[in-house]
Amino acid sequence: MSKTLVGACIFAQSGGPTAVINASAYGVIKTAIDAPEITHVYGAANGIVGVINDVLYDMNAEDAYELSLLPYTPSSELGSCRYKLKDPREVGADGDYAKILNIFRKYDVRYFFYNGGNDSMDTCAKISRYFAEVGYECRVLGIPKTIDNDLCGTDHSPGYGSAAKYIATSVAEIHKDNNVYDTGSVAIVETMGRHAGWLAGSAALARLTGAGADLIYLPEIAFDMEKFVDSVKSVYDIKKKCLVVVSEGISYADGSFVSEAKTSASDGFMHAQLGGLAAVLADVVKQRLGVKVRGIELSLLQRCGAHIASKRDIDEAQAAGEFAVRAAINGESGKMVSLRRAAGEAYECGCELQPIEAAANNEKKVPREWINADGNDVTQEFIDYALPLIQGETERPTENGLPRFARLKKLPPKNTMV
Amino acid sequence: MSKTLVGACIFAQSGGPTAVINASAYGVIKTAIDAPEITHVYGAANGIVGVINDVLYDMNAEDAYELSLLPYTPSSELGSCRYKLKDPREVGADGDYAKILNIFRKYDVRYFFYNGGNDSMDTCAKISRYFAEVGYECRVLGIPKTIDNDLCGTDHSPGYGSAAKYIATSVAEIHKDNNVYDTGSVAIVETMGRHAGWLAGSAALARLTGAGADLIYLPEIAFDMEKFVDSVKSVYDIKKKCLVVVSEGISYADGSFVSEAKTSASDGFMHAQLGGLAAVLADVVKQRLGVKVRGIELSLLQRCGAHIASKRDIDEAQAAGEFAVRAAINGESGKMVSLRRAAGEAYECGCELQPIEAAANNEKKVPREWINADGNDVTQEFIDYALPLIQGETERPTENGLPRFARLKKLPPKNTMV
Repeated sequence: MSKTLVGACIFAQSGGPTAVINASAYGVIKTAIDAPEITHVYGAANGIVGVINDVLYDMNAEDAYELSLLPYTPSSELGSCRYKLKDPREVGADGDYAKILNIFRKYDVRYFFYNGGNDSMDTCAKISRYFAEVGYECRVLGIPKTIDNDLCGTDHSPGYGSAAKYIATSVAEIHKDNNVYDTGSVAIVETMGRHAGWLAGSAALARLTGAGADLIYLPEIAFDMEKFVDSVKSVYDIKKKCLVVVSEGISYADGSFVSEAKTSASDGFMHAQLGGLAAVLADVVKQRLGVKVRGIELSLLQRCGAHIASKRDIDEAQAAGEFAVRAAINGESGKMVSLRRAAGEAYECGCELQPIEAAANNEKKVPREWINADGNDVTQEFIDYALPLIQGETERPTENGLPRFARLKKLPPKNTMV
Repeated sequence: MSKTLVGACIFAQSGGPTAVINASAYGVIKTAIDAPEITHVYGAANGIVGVINDVLYDMNAEDAYELSLLPYTPSSELGSCRYKLKDPREVGADGDYAKILNIFRKYDVRYFFYNGGNDSMDTCAKISRYFAEVGYECRVLGIPKTIDNDLCGTDHSPGYGSAAKYIATSVAEIHKDNNVYDTGSVAIVETMGRHAGWLAGSAALARLTGAGADLIYLPEIAFDMEKFVDSVKSVYDIKKKCLVVVSEGISYADGSFVSEAKTSASDGFMHAQLGGLAAVLADVVKQRLGVKVRGIELSLLQRCGAHIASKRDIDEAQAAGEFAVRAAINGESGKMVSLRRAAGEAYECGCELQPIEAAANNEKKVPREWINADGNDVTQEFIDYALPLIQGETERPTENGLPRFARLKKLPPKNTMV
């Protein structure tokens, strides 16, 4: 047990939103408000940018009931950013770091919790090193989140389970719809996932409903348009239907994104297609096979669809936030909360700490052996990994038949200037 | 009370699927199985096409529990069609009608329930007239369904409430996501609705969550691209955000669809855009205002998103099916079940019958006075109309964290041939 450190805390959110990132926010804020060592809880507007610009919200002034709705409120309620700090060793104590230190001193902040993906863990690592160099005592902990599930150093990332549940549920429903007529039809569903196929792979879970994807393409495997058309044709020839799920990030062997393919359109001119990968592939299948095709981009809803969030994901996201605060009070710093899954059949998962560098600036891909030999599906290992993460239904409250989101006051800190 | 008619019944589904059309199926099938007047219950595969081709399923052979899952199973479980019968008066008793009559005689069918939109009501009307002309005693009743809500002769259509709930919930979540960064962004969400704006208008309900659409465009109002760009700019100039919802069917004053607009792309050539209306409008806003824009097409999910169906819609769809069977047993024929909403503040709604011609081949548009003067939003009257229809959460069962759809055996009729 390290020495007791008393002071305020700042919590901030960074990177792309998820359906459950505010569950981690609730875990941090509630635990910090209740902790005697933490004198005040501030939320930063738009991540580290709000710290730099001194735009903070007074979390202690929020209504407890509204805070308790955060786990059911999608997107980053305090606002997010995609701001990358320079390395302080490169630039010395330039503007950003000096401003951050100034704000931390102004509010006597001794605890900093940053909730984000690998860029955010990089920010944590830099701030942590900077504080150590200038001798400012502050405990810095990272809390993971990303729907992409590409964070290293953790079994999975909070946010992934809910996105996977959204995708699997939606793909099952789309399968039902795509089979309604006795005429042939192909549906091509595009998920997010620029470099890793965790999201696209989750469509395989839909098969447990009896209505799943026929073909799944991940960015881990070089895409081959001829093989793709052949595979669709093989399925279609038997079933007169085909449901394909593709990750937005699939690319050819030369590294170019399929979504940026220049295709020959009916007007005879080569031009880049609007409307994303699903539209590009739908056009190719339509022209090559002469069948009815519909391209469907799941777009933002897969990351903000809180109404179909995984209860387990909500619970784990909240637990990660709580764990971060307790660990920091116990003296930990410069680390990231990670989820460790116990070995064995039954799913058990708890929080632990990892060196923050384990996650910063790395990407976890789907292992090759979890993808089938043809490169157009995932294996049972993938399903065994992902299925436990989508379990449980959200207990979200509703009002007027609509989601009842948290309504925060977001008041500025008061009487801080002396 | 008319005379008792004893015989088998055929139930069939037609037109585009909805999240709750199988709730009507359950209402019909369960009530018909339990009715002593109805000797056997058949489901036709793919609507009237299954009748013509003698592809029927034996509903009495289904497991009761599986049938009870139908209200939570999206899309048309028996399969659907878009087959339009010719008018028997025009062409005489041509092949289709003779085949239908032959099948009805073969299975001694005396009750026919057809669940669909206005084309399906037209089919009901034609079959009903044909049977009367040839002197075949059979009671024919139509049961309404359409997410478009454009059926005349009913306050609203089963299927609309769930689609509206999906849209309102999704728009609220997209609004949260679109506001996450402190940088500017515009989102353009495309709903279905070729000729009527009921679906696009339902995005206004999202405002009750505090996170709704800024601008809503319906097909009832001629679209003006300049006014549209100006309106987006006005909202954006104040909020640095703008959330637009458009109906796929919006058209210019000359009647041409905006989704088919030829726009001048950056390569200098005029060409039709892929990817639908949202992509077309996103491209225009990006080029004209130079801001970040995302086009989002809700696509099939708005009509098959059973996981966020309205409980009221499920209940009403089922009640409409039950009512049809009871009415037919009581001697009614050649009519459509309609929903009548009681006057007054509290929502009360019951089933009644309408002449089938009231619905056939007509379209109910959003009244002009329910759209604001600028033609870019709906009024409080619209909200008062639509809000009761999205109330209540589905009680759908899950398995493995995924929807547990009905699994029907779909066995052929046995021992019918004598």
